[in-house]
Amino acid sequence: MNKSVPAIAALLAGAMYSQTSPRSGRPAIETPVNALRSPEVNADRTVTLRFRAPGATAVDVAGEVMMGKGPQHMTKDADGLWTATVGPLAPGIWSYNFRVQGIDIPDPSNPSIKPVPPGLPITSFVEVPGESPAFYDAQRVPHGEVRIVTYESKAMGVTRFLWIYTPPGYDRSSARFPVLYLLHGNGETQDGWVANGRANFILDNLIAEGKARPMVIVMPQGHALQAAGVAPLVRIAGETTMYSERFPKDLLEDVIPLVEKNYRAIPDADHRAIAGLSMGGGQALAIGLAHQDLFHYVLGYSAAISAQFMDADEVFRSALANPVAINKNLRLLWLSCGKQDFLYDANRRFAESLQDKGVKVTLRETEGAHVWSVWRNNLHESAALLFR
Amino acid sequence: MNKSVPAIAALLAGAMYSQTSPRSGRPAIETPVNALRSPEVNADRTVTLRFRAPGATAVDVAGEVMMGKGPQHMTKDADGLWTATVGPLAPGIWSYNFRVQGIDIPDPSNPSIKPVPPGLPITSFVEVPGESPAFYDAQRVPHGEVRIVTYESKAMGVTRFLWIYTPPGYDRSSARFPVLYLLHGNGETQDGWVANGRANFILDNLIAEGKARPMVIVMPQGHALQAAGVAPLVRIAGETTMYSERFPKDLLEDVIPLVEKNYRAIPDADHRAIAGLSMGGGQALAIGLAHQDLFHYVLGYSAAISAQFMDADEVFRSALANPVAINKNLRLLWLSCGKQDFLYDANRRFAESLQDKGVKVTLRETEGAHVWSVWRNNLHESAALLFR
Repeated sequence: MNKSVPAIAALLAGAMYSQTSPRSGRPAIETPVNALRSPEVNADRTVTLRFRAPGATAVDVAGEVMMGKGPQHMTKDADGLWTATVGPLAPGIWSYNFRVQGIDIPDPSNPSIKPVPPGLPITSFVEVPGESPAFYDAQRVPHGEVRIVTYESKAMGVTRFLWIYTPPGYDRSSARFPVLYLLHGNGETQDGWVANGRANFILDNLIAEGKARPMVIVMPQGHALQAAGVAPLVRIAGETTMYSERFPKDLLEDVIPLVEKNYRAIPDADHRAIAGLSMGGGQALAIGLAHQDLFHYVLGYSAAISAQFMDADEVFRSALANPVAINKNLRLLWLSCGKQDFLYDANRRFAESLQDKGVKVTLRETEGAHVWSVWRNNLHESAALLFR
Repeated sequence: MNKSVPAIAALLAGAMYSQTSPRSGRPAIETPVNALRSPEVNADRTVTLRFRAPGATAVDVAGEVMMGKGPQHMTKDADGLWTATVGPLAPGIWSYNFRVQGIDIPDPSNPSIKPVPPGLPITSFVEVPGESPAFYDAQRVPHGEVRIVTYESKAMGVTRFLWIYTPPGYDRSSARFPVLYLLHGNGETQDGWVANGRANFILDNLIAEGKARPMVIVMPQGHALQAAGVAPLVRIAGETTMYSERFPKDLLEDVIPLVEKNYRAIPDADHRAIAGLSMGGGQALAIGLAHQDLFHYVLGYSAAISAQFMDADEVFRSALANPVAINKNLRLLWLSCGKQDFLYDANRRFAESLQDKGVKVTLRETEGAHVWSVWRNNLHESAALLFR
């Protein structure tokens, strides 16, 4: 098959060209290889951002890249190109927006954006690499697959999506695997843990090192949203709250049975974990503690359990009435939160209230705010503890 | 598993709420269920677009939603909310941007954006439904899966992504399937044919109706780009043309062997098709006609074969020197183009030059410009002709 490849490759190189080629004699059209470069990560881990906007009179940079500082002004050159250099930033993933006349917009040159549900603004991301491949980078190890699965949700009455990670070698194996149900945050959809979180590469790397047991990861859609295409999602009529009552029903009655029917899952509580971040952390703790017969591993990362999000006393009353049962049933109850997170106090107090009742709970306090760099670390650290 | 679901669902409904709940007494934070609604498709197939920008002095709507007309001014209310209603639009997928001070930005309330490679601006999409489910909608039929596959490209020396559609029931079957290699356009990446094109649902529906043979669809990345996360892609140093000479090498030496090793493909030319749109159409025709021993179905949709993109005489000289061989080798050679497409004349002339040499070629002329609604139709129509 390969002997004619050099010929066609050379042919393409010689005879096919972009619209900016001098051969064409036509006006240049931007192509991915010659268009504006933004963001550009520099060797010192500063990040240069560029934005072509001759008509704008002021443009700022805002977001996580400012590391808690206010917006930074960008500088305009004679051609209308706005530039700013921010940082240096720690290795990781950081959000930013351009602010034009008070309007936050994503960087139009940057395809890396946070996938969001309908109604939330689009944010750009920049990845700042460290000195060596990170635990979340695609390394030269066997890779699992991520499958986009379409299903009819009886609980919601609509077509929905799941993203499912299968570990390396899944297709060639006949083994059954434990399953982690991994829930996204309020501002995201079912693709968040892969697109932003790199859950697939985190597990590929842990498995290659022998630090995590090969597992399936199921990433459901945590809002009451209906599938349209793959990314776009349509709100289900009548939904008015962040924590939809339809989600636990969808997870328990549709998603888990589908997974255990169609994938080689080990269908018992010792081999089911439920974890999530922010809204998904609140869901994981609420559903997990109410269903200790289904999940023996329950984890909340920066869980949205503070008073503006839920009445935690009411949500957890039934579970906490029997702390001995929690210790008997669960193999791991884990809460983590960054000390700069706005949810830190709520998580610390919840952990302490559990400990006061004699419940065995891990409270993992880390550095960091309510950001993806923290949650990648949380998954990396806690996935190694599952199903052992 | 299910008997405690109503309890937890009711608990969540009662005790977990969004930040806009009057119970919280805290400032409202936008959540997906109460934030700005844009786009809104009305019953008459007009589309209302909304944009909150109190500081802006003029905002226009531009893009395919204007159906060839110039930008339309939006109207601002006392709260700084800009609104415009465009259309009515034909059922299908249409792009748009908001233009603020000459800057085109995506609709920040709309998660449906065209996935783009680095350096191209982000565009919003709106889906306008027809009176009944379309051939590209998720219908209540068995669904295939779309798999995100990570691989090391020896041809490019980097980690890359493929998206692969497997037909309904693939996992439970032991059959082998024909394979369609389906290439995206210049302004897109490997996810374009699913996210914008709905190739998965188009095939699900055709297969359910018995109109297409169950097949695997392989969607490679057609630029010389390296994987970072799943969506973001990093340009490979030194690449300066739209048609990278590295792509045919990657496809032929890395992708096809990987597919035929890891998936149940029928590994012969009668069961390989290559098709693509725009840039991908040019690639499909160039690679397919140069490798008639590998592909017996060769299709270009709105192929970028005009003078500003390639020297077609040179690219196709060798294949056209032997028109009898083309007729003997290929089971289908298909060119399609919308009559309002800027590439229409080039495609029509190329088809006529083939016909002048006695080559059997289908020239499918349709209504429409260089837009996704045309390419969904092209795939729907031509997938039914493959592997028969």
